[in-house]
Amino acid sequence: MPTDTAIPELDAAIAQQAIAQLADHPPLIHCITNTVVQNFTANLLLAAGAIPAMIIDPSECQEFAPIADGLLVNVGTLHHEHCPTYYHAAENANRFAKPWVLDPVAVGGLTLRTEFCRKLLSLNPSVIRGNASEISVLAGETTGGRGPETQLSADQALDAARKLAKTIEGIVVVTGEVDLITDGERTLKVSGGSVLATRVTGAGCALSALCAAFASLTGDRLSNVASACWMLSRAAEFAARQAAGPGTFALHLLDGLAQQREAK
Amino acid sequence: MPTDTAIPELDAAIAQQAIAQLADHPPLIHCITNTVVQNFTANLLLAAGAIPAMIIDPSECQEFAPIADGLLVNVGTLHHEHCPTYYHAAENANRFAKPWVLDPVAVGGLTLRTEFCRKLLSLNPSVIRGNASEISVLAGETTGGRGPETQLSADQALDAARKLAKTIEGIVVVTGEVDLITDGERTLKVSGGSVLATRVTGAGCALSALCAAFASLTGDRLSNVASACWMLSRAAEFAARQAAGPGTFALHLLDGLAQQREAK
Amino acid sequence: MPTDTAIPELDAAIAQQAIAQLADHPPLIHCITNTVVQNFTANLLLAAGAIPAMIIDPSECQEFAPIADGLLVNVGTLHHEHCPTYYHAAENANRFAKPWVLDPVAVGGLTLRTEFCRKLLSLNPSVIRGNASEISVLAGETTGGRGPETQLSADQALDAARKLAKTIEGIVVVTGEVDLITDGERTLKVSGGSVLATRVTGAGCALSALCAAFASLTGDRLSNVASACWMLSRAAEFAARQAAGPGTFALHLLDGLAQQREAK
Repeated sequence: MPTDTAIPELDAAIAQQAIAQLADHPPLIHCITNTVVQNFTANLLLAAGAIPAMIIDPSECQEFAPIADGLLVNVGTLHHEHCPTYYHAAENANRFAKPWVLDPVAVGGLTLRTEFCRKLLSLNPSVIRGNASEISVLAGETTGGRGPETQLSADQALDAARKLAKTIEGIVVVTGEVDLITDGERTLKVSGGSVLATRVTGAGCALSALCAAFASLTGDRLSNVASACWMLSRAAEFAARQAAGPGTFALHLLDGLAQQREAK
Repeated sequence: MPTDTAIPELDAAIAQQAIAQLADHPPLIHCITNTVVQNFTANLLLAAGAIPAMIIDPSECQEFAPIADGLLVNVGTLHHEHCPTYYHAAENANRFAKPWVLDPVAVGGLTLRTEFCRKLLSLNPSVIRGNASEISVLAGETTGGRGPETQLSADQALDAARKLAKTIEGIVVVTGEVDLITDGERTLKVSGGSVLATRVTGAGCALSALCAAFASLTGDRLSNVASACWMLSRAAEFAARQAAGPGTFALHLLDGLAQQREAK
Repeated sequence: MPTDTAIPELDAAIAQQAIAQLADHPPLIHCITNTVVQNFTANLLLAAGAIPAMIIDPSECQEFAPIADGLLVNVGTLHHEHCPTYYHAAENANRFAKPWVLDPVAVGGLTLRTEFCRKLLSLNPSVIRGNASEISVLAGETTGGRGPETQLSADQALDAARKLAKTIEGIVVVTGEVDLITDGERTLKVSGGSVLATRVTGAGCALSALCAAFASLTGDRLSNVASACWMLSRAAEFAARQAAGPGTFALHLLDGLAQQREAK
């Protein structure tokens, strides 16, 4: 595997520094996200040391842009009537120089979200977090699968990720067995985690929110965003040791995040 | 109790075969369901071995019909503006010969959902899953209670269930202390489970989604749908042994499903 | 601290009596609440001994007013299109003499919800439950912070709470390290609980729903509403002893509520 040899693993000390910075100055993250995962996303942000705010009214979203430290736009349960609100929220994040993350859930398989996510690319998301299939679709390399599940390995999607990162002049995170974080030039990887995370709905969606929190920190954004992946991977390993299945895993995952925050 | 003596219990070996089939070929289930239980429903499907997809935009619902293996329509948080989307999703499931399940939450007590569910009957749902009160209302035998709680035993609702199953030329599942699964001619029962399941919101709603997953399998649909009840009942018994109350029960329930899937 | 000495702690025997009354006659609580916490709110009500109903369609809300025993209006994910439905639900609760609770999530920081909550004050909510910042804003004493987090102690908000309670001729609950429950004349406090409750999204929102359930009981409403706080505080202490972090805490919290209900 070329990925494993050529790409450096994120240094643990750097990740722990980012986690400490987050704990010291909890960022307020505006999450515009799908209704399936709102609760888990909010709990995951709180556990990790950030403050979630789920606001959906167009005028409130506009008011909140200068207040929030970062924004997540997740298209999981997109409705065509929501598109303008999502779009303007991203525009406003740019206006106030707040980082914003795009989570292109199941892009490729469905027209509305695929066209809308392509349109959002023109607003240059600070970070895009997706699985290999979603990243490949956005990079224009494949047309996607039949659902939210991925068909490609993160490794296969690395070229697509680099290309996409250059297009948006931002960071692309491809999550999978190994997470790859790239700005098109530099690439970091985060190994480990647990396969159980794939059996919990919204683990990826919530990671995207965490990427928004870490993207709001000062310092090297590539390392900071990779630190979000690192924190979740360590929590997943902790949870896998405690859990008897995906149900208990999800809760221990939150505990594992909180313990890292407290240990900082 | 005539039910207990006259109606055969689903054979464990048949249920395990259905669970194995699900694990080998995870069906993709489109869930149009209420916002209270979306997360639990998605996690329950994942734990059991199916793949959830919550899609709400009308055009995406239409595109997804030929892709999905089954559909759930749950009216728990119905809004009159949603009715056309729900209706067309059921129509499209029929068009593409995909099984679809109706969960008529709290039907009887509230006019909008009662009239809408009656209208959906004309689209011949493959499966209707409800409690005794809901099934009786849909069969035209009572006018329902004051809320989502049931007033009748599953046994009392058996006649109503048989009548309703014949009307829709499908399967009716009445859940309660004993679950009854009937196509109007043949009836199976699934005993066991745990009373704690009644203290977890969405356990019934999530079972309806699981019924959609099992209805998509090949073989005898009556046994397959009964296997969904069987899988959840076994998981509930596992969870009741682990749990100290309804909170921990809900998570162990998911673990209990995953363990059956893995043991297949 | 003047609060600690001057204000009487709610008597445990009184709280246990209210809990027993709830268990004997489970009230049906209509929750119009934000999409982030609907699931947790429903599970918390069930665990405590009440019956949740999340209904959102305007016509169904109207029909449900005489059926429900109490109503919660929570503006966490308010959308301007929802305001009339929320408003009419509160009006109808008044018409049928059902208690209703206002949870003014993050009021002050955002215009739509702030103006809407001020308008709702004219409908005289039976109970308002908020943190110190939210209560101060509604009392007209501050303009609020940047998000849902509070900047004031409950103690500092006591004067505001008393003033607000007199304005609405109802009860105001200020939650924090110590919970204060006042009708403007009499004030009770509930101490204890766990700081972990602040790391679980929706703990406050769900308490507001529980306040609606307890407000529907017969007897002294001030003591009854304080009993909701007492029940949650005891459950939080139980959960803190079991939990390894905020994830497992949330589930043990539900177990802790159920154990009190069963012990009645």
